[in-house]
Amino acid sequence: MAGGSGTRFWPASRRLRPKQLLSLVSESTLLSATVDRILPLVPAERIWVVTTEATAGATRNLLPTLGADHILGEPEGRDTAACVGWAADVLLASDPEAVTVVLPADHVITDPEGFRSALAAGAAWVAAEGGLLTFGVRPSRPETGFGYLRIGSRSGATDGHDVHVLDRFVEKPDADTARGYVANGRFLWNSGMFAWRAADLRAEIERQLPILAAGLDRIAAAHGRADRQRVLADVYPTLQRISVDFGVMEGASRCWTMPVEFGWSDVGSWPAVADVLPAGDGGTVTRGRVVALDTSGCILIGNGPAVAAVEVRDLVVVATHDAVLVVPVEHAQRVKEVVSILKDRGWDDLL
Amino acid sequence: MAGGSGTRFWPASRRLRPKQLLSLVSESTLLSATVDRILPLVPAERIWVVTTEATAGATRNLLPTLGADHILGEPEGRDTAACVGWAADVLLASDPEAVTVVLPADHVITDPEGFRSALAAGAAWVAAEGGLLTFGVRPSRPETGFGYLRIGSRSGATDGHDVHVLDRFVEKPDADTARGYVANGRFLWNSGMFAWRAADLRAEIERQLPILAAGLDRIAAAHGRADRQRVLADVYPTLQRISVDFGVMEGASRCWTMPVEFGWSDVGSWPAVADVLPAGDGGTVTRGRVVALDTSGCILIGNGPAVAAVEVRDLVVVATHDAVLVVPVEHAQRVKEVVSILKDRGWDDLL
Repeated sequence: MAGGSGTRFWPASRRLRPKQLLSLVSESTLLSATVDRILPLVPAERIWVVTTEATAGATRNLLPTLGADHILGEPEGRDTAACVGWAADVLLASDPEAVTVVLPADHVITDPEGFRSALAAGAAWVAAEGGLLTFGVRPSRPETGFGYLRIGSRSGATDGHDVHVLDRFVEKPDADTARGYVANGRFLWNSGMFAWRAADLRAEIERQLPILAAGLDRIAAAHGRADRQRVLADVYPTLQRISVDFGVMEGASRCWTMPVEFGWSDVGSWPAVADVLPAGDGGTVTRGRVVALDTSGCILIGNGPAVAAVEVRDLVVVATHDAVLVVPVEHAQRVKEVVSILKDRGWDDLL
Repeated sequence: MAGGSGTRFWPASRRLRPKQLLSLVSESTLLSATVDRILPLVPAERIWVVTTEATAGATRNLLPTLGADHILGEPEGRDTAACVGWAADVLLASDPEAVTVVLPADHVITDPEGFRSALAAGAAWVAAEGGLLTFGVRPSRPETGFGYLRIGSRSGATDGHDVHVLDRFVEKPDADTARGYVANGRFLWNSGMFAWRAADLRAEIERQLPILAAGLDRIAAAHGRADRQRVLADVYPTLQRISVDFGVMEGASRCWTMPVEFGWSDVGSWPAVADVLPAGDGGTVTRGRVVALDTSGCILIGNGPAVAAVEVRDLVVVATHDAVLVVPVEHAQRVKEVVSILKDRGWDDLL
């Protein structure tokens, strides 16, 4: 899943260069790193990417080892239920038995071997047992920015990985509630990573979201036909807009979760990027050509221009060839307001 | 006088684009604005510019109405005594009676009519009386960044402008001393603007700085000869390095000062630039494409890239296509250390 509108990482991210196409934490883009991370487990010919039509060309260029027809371009983002349903239909057209792992393209994982081990185990579980499985990350802090999963009774284990019944999805908590979740031990972060047989996912959509299923059926019926792109362009933007978590997983008849710990981060903001990068003097994190003179706690990113910062604390500075952002770490989420102001002013070249 | 090494306005200023070639406060460069300011008083054919050889080409391009031979390129900066001595010799070659006003090319003046009136009066005074005259700016605050002039007895007036004997030059004071100077009323800011007959200046150099005079004589002797550029290149870098203030003015046999008030600023730092620009919300000053969201007291300059600043106070942000500076207003002078670090790292493209 390589969607996303690219506002949280402005000015590095843009409409046509969303987060997964950025090299935020290494020389690789997050998308390339995601593909590289699963290649030891899944060969390129069995990897598909769903992205927006606008970025499909850039995505194909970035991933030449994947067939061009393995990059699926959504005419318009319609949330994750439509995305995974469409992908399931594409896979089922060539393999009715397809077992699928669904991964966001813009996360960071510091223990790729542990990650692959969990993925293989999750896939083996759903291949044998059916149902829908979500990978839940053991929380390392009382994070209020994520949804949580409450785990139910243990159902078994595969290759040393426990599998539990998924009790329920929990919305983003406040700080006190989050502390309670961490202390309780039965709550996991909802990572947005899943495993299922494509047919099982498709059947749950049919059962719970019949209107979405009918739209997907119209698209699938055009598979291999000359007018398939026109049908996609006509129908996809009308698909029901709902997340797979609340639209499909929560009401699924068999739903599992596998607790995992493999150094996962959703790197959802500049401060989250800094958390996974090594810090220098004063805890300042730098990327690119940077002079940091008596700074502390800063995130200084010279993504094109060099950045020189003197005597500043806890500041995010991101410079690209055409725009610069300066914001305190604690207010980094206000970058969305900046993007909205740019839109209002008609500075479209900066979006 | 259009010399200067261009470190205080990094990253806008560079070795080959020093302060006088920047458009810091209007659409014009400071140098063009300086020339435009005196044109109603002095026709282009009687204006000369002394700059460094490295920036002579850019200076000629900027000032096409001046003859190319009116842009004098110093092979190397040797301080102001050599600069004004050389210029005097150039003028004397065509006009032994030349009356000269010497102006820095990188200052801002908000009352250009008052400025021209004072300049005309100063030139008239030295044309009639001889001696060396310096324009002294009535201090509006206890500035510790300037040298001061102590005025002596009143010698007379011309066109409504008083002229005093110059008592002495005073080095940059500490804050208490500066407050005393302002209260005293007999101290003026040393603006670095002068008037004299070229022959008088040259005679004072001869009398007080005979070694400098001998070097200037060697250069002047080559005037009109085929080898004049070679002589200049050989001799100029060996000239005695001393300021006209302490090397010539202080010991001159007749030395005047004219107190002036015409909205003068030497705009010697980013905060000084902000002082002469209109401020917006929260006292933040902006240039270029800037989004300032809940900022106060900032100086935000998008000199190429756009700048977006959120929730920051009293911060200087200057962005050019290849470098960005972020520094608190109160530490703006530390930009010199940044330039020195760039030099140490060999990032010569940023100098």
